[in-house]
Amino acid sequence: MSVKKFVNDPDDLVAEALTGLVAASRGALRLHTDPLWLASTADAGVRRVALVSGGGSGHEPLHTGFVGPGMLDAAVPGAVFASPTALQVVAAVRGADRGAGVLLVVKNYTGDVLNFRIAAEIAAEEGIAVETVLVDDDLATDPGADARGGPGRRGTAATVVVEKVCGAAAARGLPLAEVAALGRRVVAGARSMAVALEGAVHPGEDVRSFDLAGDEVELGVGIHGERGTARRPMAPARELVTALVEPLVGALGLDDGDGVVVVVNGLGSTHLLELSLVFGEVAALLAARRIAVRRSLVGPYVTALDMAGASVTLVRADDGLLDLWDAPVATTALTWGAR
Amino acid sequence: MSVKKFVNDPDDLVAEALTGLVAASRGALRLHTDPLWLASTADAGVRRVALVSGGGSGHEPLHTGFVGPGMLDAAVPGAVFASPTALQVVAAVRGADRGAGVLLVVKNYTGDVLNFRIAAEIAAEEGIAVETVLVDDDLATDPGADARGGPGRRGTAATVVVEKVCGAAAARGLPLAEVAALGRRVVAGARSMAVALEGAVHPGEDVRSFDLAGDEVELGVGIHGERGTARRPMAPARELVTALVEPLVGALGLDDGDGVVVVVNGLGSTHLLELSLVFGEVAALLAARRIAVRRSLVGPYVTALDMAGASVTLVRADDGLLDLWDAPVATTALTWGAR
Repeated sequence: MSVKKFVNDPDDLVAEALTGLVAASRGALRLHTDPLWLASTADAGVRRVALVSGGGSGHEPLHTGFVGPGMLDAAVPGAVFASPTALQVVAAVRGADRGAGVLLVVKNYTGDVLNFRIAAEIAAEEGIAVETVLVDDDLATDPGADARGGPGRRGTAATVVVEKVCGAAAARGLPLAEVAALGRRVVAGARSMAVALEGAVHPGEDVRSFDLAGDEVELGVGIHGERGTARRPMAPARELVTALVEPLVGALGLDDGDGVVVVVNGLGSTHLLELSLVFGEVAALLAARRIAVRRSLVGPYVTALDMAGASVTLVRADDGLLDLWDAPVATTALTWGAR
Repeated sequence: MSVKKFVNDPDDLVAEALTGLVAASRGALRLHTDPLWLASTADAGVRRVALVSGGGSGHEPLHTGFVGPGMLDAAVPGAVFASPTALQVVAAVRGADRGAGVLLVVKNYTGDVLNFRIAAEIAAEEGIAVETVLVDDDLATDPGADARGGPGRRGTAATVVVEKVCGAAAARGLPLAEVAALGRRVVAGARSMAVALEGAVHPGEDVRSFDLAGDEVELGVGIHGERGTARRPMAPARELVTALVEPLVGALGLDDGDGVVVVVNGLGSTHLLELSLVFGEVAALLAARRIAVRRSLVGPYVTALDMAGASVTLVRADDGLLDLWDAPVATTALTWGAR
């Protein structure tokens, strides 16, 4: 007996969820099948840089919830926790291109990196200008200064900030190289750390993807349930948040007078009351160091199915980045400003 | 050993979560303590109707996430699943009043009804014009035509639609009686049904508030885990959604050519992929009856802590209601249009 979830056939969950998302969009989104990718119907005739992202499903609202004016022009969903194929990505790049090139926003996982790279090569051969921003914010997987090779840091919730900032830059008509450079600047100034209280259950399965004892949590966990850096005893939220935030502050070299965008991200089943409390703890820790919270997001933005837990992302923010952050956006999961 | 959640002391969860919410608002919200209520800092000097709502905590983003321009002027949070006191409500009414009267939006639960009524009487004695809209959309608790007395239907996710529509009407400067009449019109045309896949766990506790066998679900469950109308075997999502939607269509007498606002609401821990799939099923059922989905919300809006499950709300919608629905709103949980 599998754990109860709203599915018909687990194999159809992603496609049926996309059908629902498109139905709710009232024409703002269009679903392409064979291969599968999701398009914004806005700005089809506007010559400007287009943004395409994607990756495994199960992290919603990432990426499909961020398709729309001011953010992504297309998202390419794989199966749950599995990279989309290169052919899916190529189809999205061709479809999204508005004559001024395409920026790919790619989370740093082996499968995604490979498939987006192949797609970029194929598109380039077809004459489409393509740049890639690789998001690698997860401090738990930082190989350190001595590392050579290896996959490097994973990409997690900083992706939302990259997509927002680059989407605003593209909407303003900036050229591809500048949009890409902005994305890389966000990535360079971003680090994240997650803590899991419980593992996720995959649709159609009957056990959690990993087990934690009743009194332990996992620090540095990945958004697919990848093993973290340490298991430690459960503790008051203040202690857990400190264990997330202090390494981020250190890694980014943040100091008195610096400003950041903060994302307190729910990993799936953690309640908004708890996430709000976590944000309050993050804000207090940063205030004690006189690091200014310039903007913030609090909610489930980059989930790991129904994992219980949260991540904290800090992104160095200057006025230029904040101006792009504040620009209008109209997607399912992020909407503000005039539309 | 209690189930792991991000809390310091469970007794402080609500207050600490509010502190975090206010910190994230960058001045848009102000928390009053002793007694506890949350205020929007917008429009303080504008003479117009003010909106105040509230109820037990644990349903976030309801109500605190809906405070801001275009929606609530104040929210009054009780402890988890417990009504706020009349003194809290009175303080919020006094503070929110902008000289044109206060509309109270009250979900139909005995404690809330009593405390908001006492508060309304005290405020009226002080010379503040007060009207109340009682939200009672939960079809599972419909006493039927023969019922006399009794508490009547509970209030659930239609509350979001009432707060949005009345907030827009208040922002446009409509008088109190008209804003209240609009709210009552929404309520009259709204019905909801919920299904729980698993019960919630209260902060600091170690067991679910109710137990379901591995192969059963509870139809008609309340947002505090109140017993529903039937336990039935788990089934594909399409069957569960049909069991929710068909009674709603019948109760509202919806027919070919009618239009509705649809809210597919997550009860807490249910993933957005599943909620999107549920919306797709609702949309297909309504399309087969030629009932038009005019607008929709899909996400966790009125939660029951971390209960697994979803509710469907249908609200009869005419052009006047949709015009108010589309008006700008700028709250934590609902934001669109110019701000």
